Amino acid sequence: MTREYIDEIKRVIEEKNEAEAIGLMEELHPADIAEIYDELSIDEAKFLYLLLDGDTAADVLAELEEDDRDRFVKALPAEVVAKKFIDKMDSDDAADVIGGLSDEKQEEILSHIEDIEQAGDIVDLLHYDEDTAGGLMAKELVIVNENWTVLTCLRELSRQAEDIDEIYYVYVVDDDGILKGTLSLKKMILSPTSAKIINIYTPDVMSVHTDEEDEEVAHIMEKYDLVAIPVVDSIGRLMGRITIDDVVDVIRDEAEKDYQMASGLAEDVEASDSIWIQTRARLPWLVIGLIGGIFAAMVIHKYEDAIGQIPAMAIFIPLITAMAGNVGVQSSAIIVQGIANNSLGFESVFSRIMRELGGAVINGLTCSALLFVCNYFYSGEFTLTIAVSVALFSVIIFAAIAGTLIPLMLNKAKIDPALATGPFITTLNDIVGIFIYFGISVYFFNLL
Amino acid sequence: MTREYIDEIKRVIEEKNEAEAIGLMEELHPADIAEIYDELSIDEAKFLYLLLDGDTAADVLAELEEDDRDRFVKALPAEVVAKKFIDKMDSDDAADVIGGLSDEKQEEILSHIEDIEQAGDIVDLLHYDEDTAGGLMAKELVIVNENWTVLTCLRELSRQAEDIDEIYYVYVVDDDGILKGTLSLKKMILSPTSAKIINIYTPDVMSVHTDEEDEEVAHIMEKYDLVAIPVVDSIGRLMGRITIDDVVDVIRDEAEKDYQMASGLAEDVEASDSIWIQTRARLPWLVIGLIGGIFAAMVIHKYEDAIGQIPAMAIFIPLITAMAGNVGVQSSAIIVQGIANNSLGFESVFSRIMRELGGAVINGLTCSALLFVCNYFYSGEFTLTIAVSVALFSVIIFAAIAGTLIPLMLNKAKIDPALATGPFITTLNDIVGIFIYFGISVYFFNLL
Repeated sequence: MTREYIDEIKRVIEEKNEAEAIGLMEELHPADIAEIYDELSIDEAKFLYLLLDGDTAADVLAELEEDDRDRFVKALPAEVVAKKFIDKMDSDDAADVIGGLSDEKQEEILSHIEDIEQAGDIVDLLHYDEDTAGGLMAKELVIVNENWTVLTCLRELSRQAEDIDEIYYVYVVDDDGILKGTLSLKKMILSPTSAKIINIYTPDVMSVHTDEEDEEVAHIMEKYDLVAIPVVDSIGRLMGRITIDDVVDVIRDEAEKDYQMASGLAEDVEASDSIWIQTRARLPWLVIGLIGGIFAAMVIHKYEDAIGQIPAMAIFIPLITAMAGNVGVQSSAIIVQGIANNSLGFESVFSRIMRELGGAVINGLTCSALLFVCNYFYSGEFTLTIAVSVALFSVIIFAAIAGTLIPLMLNKAKIDPALATGPFITTLNDIVGIFIYFGISVYFFNLL
Repeated sequence: MTREYIDEIKRVIEEKNEAEAIGLMEELHPADIAEIYDELSIDEAKFLYLLLDGDTAADVLAELEEDDRDRFVKALPAEVVAKKFIDKMDSDDAADVIGGLSDEKQEEILSHIEDIEQAGDIVDLLHYDEDTAGGLMAKELVIVNENWTVLTCLRELSRQAEDIDEIYYVYVVDDDGILKGTLSLKKMILSPTSAKIINIYTPDVMSVHTDEEDEEVAHIMEKYDLVAIPVVDSIGRLMGRITIDDVVDVIRDEAEKDYQMASGLAEDVEASDSIWIQTRARLPWLVIGLIGGIFAAMVIHKYEDAIGQIPAMAIFIPLITAMAGNVGVQSSAIIVQGIANNSLGFESVFSRIMRELGGAVINGLTCSALLFVCNYFYSGEFTLTIAVSVALFSVIIFAAIAGTLIPLMLNKAKIDPALATGPFITTLNDIVGIFIYFGISVYFFNLL
């Protein structure tokens, strides 16, 4: 994908040269064709994507980013969306596409879908919250009854597999549709055709409930190295299956969400988003930071007379606040990632704080000693030198404990601990850090 | 997994009650048994894990975290490692286990492996760098020759598939071992047994070179929704295959690495790591932050006389540095994630900066106006009120541009742009922010 290629595509679209446009896209994977979208206007995209044939068109739509897809689908007549795209998509992708539209548009599109079974599957899937296993799953499954023979299975397989690209597992159910286990294709190929499924399938398959949270599904599949997982309802009936490629997005989103919150971004923004979307994500955190800064200003205001007497005290304000912020962000990031990875184990809060305290003492002593040496040789101002080093040490200890404790407490209160990182914890540490610094300095200078 | 269960396991180990220990683990998945490791001493782990039988023991070892696994394997005799674990592992996991050991221990273990083919596969895999496709791949493959018939294939399959848990793809090669394409099991089941493979396989399979970077492999598999990808050498011979479960770890690690760097952690640390490991990851960044703080102190030192005359100027130092840091971290996080996701597209640096500038003007005006109103009513100090608001606006503009430009430049210079986030960019913005603030204040107060 190069700049030249994009320019070529745009030229061909402008000339309305259909044959050449089709030729240009022929060699590309649907995921690559979807990537061009960002470079096109909505009319250019309409011209280009309506040239694609059946399956490719559906695959391209499934690969578009959610916002782009919603905007694109809204710009097309319902009948085109239904016949050109939805009819040929996997049920989970189709439900994702339709889920973003208004109720009327949904109804209109559904009424134009020719495959009644597909329309029914989509309606079923639309009932589930998109952050749950039900919202992630697809209805395309290969299901066999435990009472069948291998021969019946093979015959059924060729019928069911028609709509399915790849078969990872064949699911075994009883007469009531309750999930019993899986049957590997390998086992089926290697068994005599007269063998009964009940005698060769693998029981004890891992499954998730339709209401399970998507991040939990991701953890389970990641932990147990699963490529697909069946989804069951409350009485154990097989409702659908989730494949790992859908879960990979959940895993990346989860890891990125923590990073974004730590960076003070209130929602998922991308470099290519408009100024307005970016501002909506950024301004709220900046205002919180501003309010924190005003509080910090009020703390310093109390010590204005002291600064008037010894202006050098102001010199180390940024050093103290920066170190408080850095230490606090480090501590909270370790805890937030530990919670996200489920790797905190059973260590008690007390022993965790003690270990953090140990590390903070080492870091605090090292940094304070370095600062002391620098100051001593550079300024020769002994009282300030001592006061700053003591304050730095105290601030590091406080920031480490606050950075560890706050996310643990938020997690206990079922609030996303990633909230604690980013501007919130830096701001708190700024205020407390300044308070500690001036308190100690004023004490050392006997200014009270 | 509960505290009670762990205590029960520990009690049984202490009593050396083998039967009960086996009973306790019987219901557990290998990934769960591996999770107990963190709670055990090395002797307890040895007692427990040597009780496991064949495949389970191998799976548990594969699931252990790298550091834990290295320590555990080093504590066992080479012969036990070879016969109890390595012999029964997939080649990629086996190579990972052995790769962490000294050359002598590697040789010793390899000499005890009974399955010569397995030993050969491991030796082959040890040649590849662990961050490449070669380092990720496994040698367990189902390979068929394009000139065979379906019948020959089915027979070969039952022979080759013996060592393989799940078959996702059957790979088709020519007489020279060059990868030609894939054959779906579905297609094989549905074709007549006399059909020639060359007539039914799918050509144009996506593959990666053994030297490809692991993160690039992850991007390809994620983008094209692949469950497995074949790995080829420079002349296109099929060398192995990578499955998505190995890549999921790469994806999570990559996303977490950016977050860790942004949080000022120099290496991958976990909440359960010892104080020394944590200090090694944290102290270097803190010292960089400290040096930045000393530079900031030197800047303020230049304005000490001005502060002596108007001590109130010190009041807003933390507000200015905090806002500079927050804006810079936001801007750089958006760019760093865009680079990581390959979602920056073809927008020129100039137009990206212009958009960032637009957002910064909105954010800057809003924050400055809010601060102005607060200050005006709270302090009534008109000159300072104006000076601080102008300074805040300027600092926000600078921080946004620096936060966008620096990671883009680092990326161009092939340096990890995540370096720019975290303490480095906050420190730089602190120093420049203070410089701008005092420059503007001194100008407004006519103190020059």
